[in-house]
Amino acid sequence: MENNKSTLIVFSGDLDKAIASFIIATGSAAMGNQVTMFFTFWGLNILRKDQYVSVQKSLMDKMFAKMLPRGPEKLGISKMNFGGLGAKMMKYTMKKKNITTLKELIEMAKELDIKMVACTMSMDVLGIQQEELIDGLEYAGVASYLAEANEAKINLFI
Amino acid sequence: MENNKSTLIVFSGDLDKAIASFIIATGSAAMGNQVTMFFTFWGLNILRKDQYVSVQKSLMDKMFAKMLPRGPEKLGISKMNFGGLGAKMMKYTMKKKNITTLKELIEMAKELDIKMVACTMSMDVLGIQQEELIDGLEYAGVASYLAEANEAKINLFI
Amino acid sequence: MENNKSTLIVFSGDLDKAIASFIIATGSAAMGNQVTMFFTFWGLNILRKDQYVSVQKSLMDKMFAKMLPRGPEKLGISKMNFGGLGAKMMKYTMKKKNITTLKELIEMAKELDIKMVACTMSMDVLGIQQEELIDGLEYAGVASYLAEANEAKINLFI
Repeated sequence: MENNKSTLIVFSGDLDKAIASFIIATGSAAMGNQVTMFFTFWGLNILRKDQYVSVQKSLMDKMFAKMLPRGPEKLGISKMNFGGLGAKMMKYTMKKKNITTLKELIEMAKELDIKMVACTMSMDVLGIQQEELIDGLEYAGVASYLAEANEAKINLFI
Repeated sequence: MENNKSTLIVFSGDLDKAIASFIIATGSAAMGNQVTMFFTFWGLNILRKDQYVSVQKSLMDKMFAKMLPRGPEKLGISKMNFGGLGAKMMKYTMKKKNITTLKELIEMAKELDIKMVACTMSMDVLGIQQEELIDGLEYAGVASYLAEANEAKINLFI
Repeated sequence: MENNKSTLIVFSGDLDKAIASFIIATGSAAMGNQVTMFFTFWGLNILRKDQYVSVQKSLMDKMFAKMLPRGPEKLGISKMNFGGLGAKMMKYTMKKKNITTLKELIEMAKELDIKMVACTMSMDVLGIQQEELIDGLEYAGVASYLAEANEAKINLFI
């Protein structure tokens, strides 16, 4: 099989959708495809460092930062979250069944050379700064995503 | 027009998104395309038999089974569900306007030889067993989906 | 770069997803791609005129019309909407940071000759009539969308 490109826009910051995104992305990379994940809006929450990072922010940006979950451990699920209980249940059952966690999937994505891009416009809207996101990311806008998607075989919006 | 492939990942278990998925899938098959629907996470609820099936389950799997809707008649809608009222309104108005129901769409999909695949990893996470799902499905993982998507003209994540 | 086609199914009527749809669509058109946006289900809310339009409706259609938001200014966001507060915060911060509003993005889409299609079946389900939607739209069903998607390089479901 020849090498193809795949792109995923990760718009959602839900744990279940984040897991789905990374399973598709790492699966595609493992097949030999070149994969780009473009994280935008709530999807940026997946990339936040789990500890607080001290940066200068406007009041509104501070409010967003408070309200938005910080990294993989803090995400809720898209259905039946029940204030976090659903997410806990899902993580518990995935652990028990030896299914890779989101944190491990992110590490796998890096090892498989998946290009993880943070959408700079969304970072601007939500007041998120580079220091607050995990290492190993690229930073770009929608034009960069579109150039890749135009050449890719698989393009998904999640 | 030549025969192309289409794939749909049906991640959502919302009635409205399920209907949209099957309308796109059956429409594409009717045009002569080869269509694969890959049901994952909440999308598996669409495929559940509507009666209770007695299978051995762990406590956690039993809880998931209780909480998750059983088949097309039990699904809610993604917006304005109001504890099921929204779904009822939508079904009522679709019936009155002679629009095909989800149950009929699923039958159509089978008649049009649409390949309906249940994601085995998601079945594992949610503790869903083959006996609990409708007949005529295939069972596979993400690699099988990706192989098809790499060759398809239309790939959607719903 | 050659001219390619892009299609977007805009199923969601959430402000954040609507903005994402139009940013992708206008970005793609600006690159020289031919872009079609197919608005279905809640996505039709984005296209509603913001003032009340007097048309004959059944009781059920009137109820839907009352419950559904009328145009870009009335949409909520998909996460942390808090009864509209989230949407207000997002609009406030986007304005302050000089990011194009949804209303402006829709105007841009028209100027860039993006084909905006309202899904006639969804209009039927939700009881929405042409007079209630903004000018400059086309009206078609899923077959028309699929014909375009089969030839497009980028197909997204949002």
